[in-house]
Amino acid sequence: MSSKEEVRGKFVDEFPELVEELKDVLRKYGMPAEAITWFEKNLNYNTPGGKLNRGLSVVDTYAILKNYKSVNDLSKDEYRKVAVLGWCIELLQAYFLVADDMMDKSITRRGQPCWYKVKDVGEIAINDAFMLEAAIYELLKKYFKGQSYYIDLIELFHEVTFQTEMGQLLDLITAPEDKVDLSKFSLAKHSFIVIFKTAYYSFYLPVALAMYMAGITDAKDLKQAQDVLIPLGEYFQIQDDYLDCFGTPEQIGKIGTDIQDNKCSWIINKALELATPEQRKVLDENYGRKDSVMEARCKKIFVDMKLDEHYHEYEEKVATELKAKIAKIDESRGFKGEVLTAFLNKVYKRSK
Amino acid sequence: MSSKEEVRGKFVDEFPELVEELKDVLRKYGMPAEAITWFEKNLNYNTPGGKLNRGLSVVDTYAILKNYKSVNDLSKDEYRKVAVLGWCIELLQAYFLVADDMMDKSITRRGQPCWYKVKDVGEIAINDAFMLEAAIYELLKKYFKGQSYYIDLIELFHEVTFQTEMGQLLDLITAPEDKVDLSKFSLAKHSFIVIFKTAYYSFYLPVALAMYMAGITDAKDLKQAQDVLIPLGEYFQIQDDYLDCFGTPEQIGKIGTDIQDNKCSWIINKALELATPEQRKVLDENYGRKDSVMEARCKKIFVDMKLDEHYHEYEEKVATELKAKIAKIDESRGFKGEVLTAFLNKVYKRSK
Repeated sequence: MSSKEEVRGKFVDEFPELVEELKDVLRKYGMPAEAITWFEKNLNYNTPGGKLNRGLSVVDTYAILKNYKSVNDLSKDEYRKVAVLGWCIELLQAYFLVADDMMDKSITRRGQPCWYKVKDVGEIAINDAFMLEAAIYELLKKYFKGQSYYIDLIELFHEVTFQTEMGQLLDLITAPEDKVDLSKFSLAKHSFIVIFKTAYYSFYLPVALAMYMAGITDAKDLKQAQDVLIPLGEYFQIQDDYLDCFGTPEQIGKIGTDIQDNKCSWIINKALELATPEQRKVLDENYGRKDSVMEARCKKIFVDMKLDEHYHEYEEKVATELKAKIAKIDESRGFKGEVLTAFLNKVYKRSK
Repeated sequence: MSSKEEVRGKFVDEFPELVEELKDVLRKYGMPAEAITWFEKNLNYNTPGGKLNRGLSVVDTYAILKNYKSVNDLSKDEYRKVAVLGWCIELLQAYFLVADDMMDKSITRRGQPCWYKVKDVGEIAINDAFMLEAAIYELLKKYFKGQSYYIDLIELFHEVTFQTEMGQLLDLITAPEDKVDLSKFSLAKHSFIVIFKTAYYSFYLPVALAMYMAGITDAKDLKQAQDVLIPLGEYFQIQDDYLDCFGTPEQIGKIGTDIQDNKCSWIINKALELATPEQRKVLDENYGRKDSVMEARCKKIFVDMKLDEHYHEYEEKVATELKAKIAKIDESRGFKGEVLTAFLNKVYKRSK
């Protein structure tokens, strides 16, 4: 057994070598030194530094599928390869976050200025985001070319990337920060946004990558994974939306801003479903404004409606359904319900 | 024989169906209508509308390699597939241009406002650029999955995309518009920038794609193509830099702005190589400033140095070398020097 910190540390330790290998690609092309240094800084500033949940869960899932008791049971080469897949998701995430922060005009990310806010970076961050994405395919080529599932990995990254971009597009045009129009919102649209923008790349992608590497690639098994992980990812995001409004700052480590930011959150969508004409009027006139009095008016309606109770009802229902689905997983081809239970346990009743 | 307009028209006519097929992908995912409409507008606004030289040269090259006298000799299915490859380059170009315009803070492109300048678009253009890139891999999958060279097409697009991004990065950090530092410039760096930012995707990529589809895929043949097309692409960009300074507005259809824009152009780099200390001082103090008097001081030095003669010397030298290389092309495996001659003829002594 290894502690959570050890597991994380082992994963983090792989990154510097990947950076060197990516720099080697540029060196071989004869790229001038200052541009190689820039690329290195881009990789190191934007890729590690988060919770690394997505990357780590590729490793965890692979270990479960291969019946390893601990990540230390993997051979050096095997660990390296599965860690590369994990870091590829973290690169994908970095690519999205660098861009999202520009689109949202965010100021900080992971306790440091957003990349585009760093001195001398500015709009160059767009090209830097592109290069983070390109790094994924360089690594896949270096580590997986020649494997039977190489093309599957590439197609999976392409598909999930496109899905995430679709979710991001719908979110951007549904809830622009400067133009409140609650008639555009609906629970159905919220569901599409969170499934596409978050669930595919954060929940389905890590498991599917681990499955390919473990040789569990039957379409039926990928579907079994997806059928649990997509609703679980949706639940995760709904929980996030709930905590932004009802969590204490101590719980969530920040002060929620979804109401002032005109976010298309589960909370406002559920409220719109339940609102009386009077409540609807208050929401139309107060949601999405940079004003704490208006924010408090919205919050009062959410409390009056007992949206926290509605959330807990939803949470219990979805958790029960997912447990039932997991219990019925067909393990005959080597897939394991345990993979999904591990994910569910990370989400169910978390408070931060 | 078909006229240039007919050939172009036939290619353009393929695009609307590709747009429909891409919209179908979103429809199958259940994407709400307004987001599908947005994606359609993104595709139509940014992809056609240029000269389409890159896309058309995939078709032309393929016809030459397959000994067709006219593009009308291709079967309907065959034409469709080669046109898809052509449109994939145009999508790649659209992806770059939408982003470049944001990074350069440009105002217009192809006679219309830049995409990010269009009402309600703004920073969403970053995600739209991503989706233009994603469209490439959707189309490759739809039309080429199952072909032996499917993975080669994907890897080629990945490689050339990364190369273009490297060139763009070096350009952005070497010649930021707001910070003139000519000590960062050099002819070697200029060469790297234009080869990576322009030559790979505009010259090598169309030919390599046509070669894969025509079944001419020996590494020796791809190298023969690259060895001519990369210097030719470099020559094309140097010509562009020359025309920006020495071409008349009637010739180039615009007024050159490279001097005021602090562009890392062949002209300034050649001038820096030849400059006396006095000339260097004038250039250091006047290049890259938004001031027409300062611009005229730089231009006078360029004229005094007879950079136009230096350019013509370079042009004759490179054209002679390329013709000699083309004459020696080994056609034993089916590759044809004629492909390269067609490209050279489009560039040599063009005046716009």
